[in-house]
Amino acid sequence: MVRGELSSPTIAYETWGTLNAEHSNAVLIFTGLSPSSHVASSGEDPSPGWWEDMVGPGKPLDTNRYFVICVNSLGSCFGSTGPASINPATKDHYRLSFPVLCVEDIANAGAALLDHLQVSTLHTVLGASMGGMTALAFALQHPGRAQGMISISAAARSQPFSIAIRSLQREMIRRDEAWKAGNYDFDAPPAIGMRLARKLGMISYRSASEWTERFGRERALDEAPRNDPFGLDFEVESYLEAHANKFVGSFDANCYLYLSRAMDLFDVADQGGSLDKGLARIGLQRALIIGVETDFLFPIEQQEELAQGLTSYVADVEFMRLASLQGHDSFLVDMDRFRPAVARFF
Amino acid sequence: MVRGELSSPTIAYETWGTLNAEHSNAVLIFTGLSPSSHVASSGEDPSPGWWEDMVGPGKPLDTNRYFVICVNSLGSCFGSTGPASINPATKDHYRLSFPVLCVEDIANAGAALLDHLQVSTLHTVLGASMGGMTALAFALQHPGRAQGMISISAAARSQPFSIAIRSLQREMIRRDEAWKAGNYDFDAPPAIGMRLARKLGMISYRSASEWTERFGRERALDEAPRNDPFGLDFEVESYLEAHANKFVGSFDANCYLYLSRAMDLFDVADQGGSLDKGLARIGLQRALIIGVETDFLFPIEQQEELAQGLTSYVADVEFMRLASLQGHDSFLVDMDRFRPAVARFF
Repeated sequence: MVRGELSSPTIAYETWGTLNAEHSNAVLIFTGLSPSSHVASSGEDPSPGWWEDMVGPGKPLDTNRYFVICVNSLGSCFGSTGPASINPATKDHYRLSFPVLCVEDIANAGAALLDHLQVSTLHTVLGASMGGMTALAFALQHPGRAQGMISISAAARSQPFSIAIRSLQREMIRRDEAWKAGNYDFDAPPAIGMRLARKLGMISYRSASEWTERFGRERALDEAPRNDPFGLDFEVESYLEAHANKFVGSFDANCYLYLSRAMDLFDVADQGGSLDKGLARIGLQRALIIGVETDFLFPIEQQEELAQGLTSYVADVEFMRLASLQGHDSFLVDMDRFRPAVARFF
Repeated sequence: MVRGELSSPTIAYETWGTLNAEHSNAVLIFTGLSPSSHVASSGEDPSPGWWEDMVGPGKPLDTNRYFVICVNSLGSCFGSTGPASINPATKDHYRLSFPVLCVEDIANAGAALLDHLQVSTLHTVLGASMGGMTALAFALQHPGRAQGMISISAAARSQPFSIAIRSLQREMIRRDEAWKAGNYDFDAPPAIGMRLARKLGMISYRSASEWTERFGRERALDEAPRNDPFGLDFEVESYLEAHANKFVGSFDANCYLYLSRAMDLFDVADQGGSLDKGLARIGLQRALIIGVETDFLFPIEQQEELAQGLTSYVADVEFMRLASLQGHDSFLVDMDRFRPAVARFF
């Protein structure tokens, strides 16, 4: 591991709505591992955002009422400084010379952005998946700066099962010869490793019951070519193939490795020695913890553990257990359940 | 796909105990994807078998009372004919010219073995995982030949979630350049693909709760070398590494591909159009279906569906739901629960 500091990193972000004079309506969104800061469409960029149904005028996170900021994570590759960026000291890409990245660093980059925007306090910090971890890290590193927090399908620490999945995803990329110990040509990235990692991602983001309902044993329309006895056969295999094709080329492999690892390393108990002692630093007035019953990457028990742990230190804690079928990814797709849950908080 | 026939395949097997004159004490065991026919130690081979605690004198499957036969699956690489075997017609290895393999073919090879051994009827046919599917296929293809059946952590058909996992495992192997479209040097097999596939196997064979209890966030003893920022860090990563090391070199890659695919293709409903119509062919008097609550590869709902479906056609059906923590692999490790379950049947 390289431990070190970044000199003047760039942090990419987008905002919607207007900050009021009292600074009482600012909301900061941290993202999951792969999205950019484009959470919703805007005048400058009318393309749909990754949470278009949730953020906008009249939507649950109403940009007519709130000043919404979404930040591209430090270490990512959509404008913020990460392993694919140029190191100003060497004029070369950081690649694996990028220092080891922690979820806390991503949270602190968000806080630095607030300073830059002269936003003193937040109405709410929120995020889902890695973004939920980051929102929690923000609330712990900067007690009092946010009044409320929403953590969706996240956790106070990574458990060995999700570490194992992410470790294997990273190995798939690192074992791809095209990775070249991080020194790949950006025009010839480790595409095979990224494809495999994305497929395992999709398997771990959804749920068995959703797929049984959705695909059953349907065969793929484009049958396996006769010369490939192990080609696509079932509809579920085509589905994974389509997702892998979309992902490769859109995300930098080294950035993926760093962000994935940051999630493994996250553990609230690192400060103080126990979850309870770690959470004692928090300075929130309200917290909403949302979990999904079919999520096996961040299982509902972990959401419950977090909500339970917060009750000692936060006056108003709500825990919502959603019966969505789509597993970890439910917050992106089961909007009929997630919209009212988030709307009620705001 | 190659559809075809094998001329005079070899079927490897081992037996324990003695067949009685009435042929009322023969038991046939089909295996999961990776084991050999060495289910238990014997005079000829005193090394411990893969189900040593279950099979032997005075054990739940008591070889003092029963004539136990365990067969190496057709398509495997421990003595039975498979893709790694020599095709007598060409004097070369079959490799991908091996015909497409179905679970029914493995079952029929077991029936042919019984003919060879002059065993007319079975007291019980049994198996776990793929072996449970094969036991079911045997009972459906050869109604009346077995009186009883035990299916452990298996299913009447593969669901898309488990198909997705196996499909990805196969892709890991096929994407390894060393695979060479199946034409690898046996001394230089696609070791990277096999390692990755085995790790995903281990992830899918166990359960998140077992690993949380067993590993928590313990760090690996042999820390990551400083020049590899993504090396082993957590204990769970070392565990997967050890399993991958053990597997590579011990199992043939093409055999793995064929057997894995056979599981995807298995669907009792292929005969007759529905699970119920498929099961109608069965000719059993007793069936015991055992499932494990933490198994997410062959989830408990599938075991229940099978048991429920059998009640229309089998007089005595028992369904056992075990609370083992070790997921799909529980039948190999949670012997305190599995021993009494199997003993009671016999």
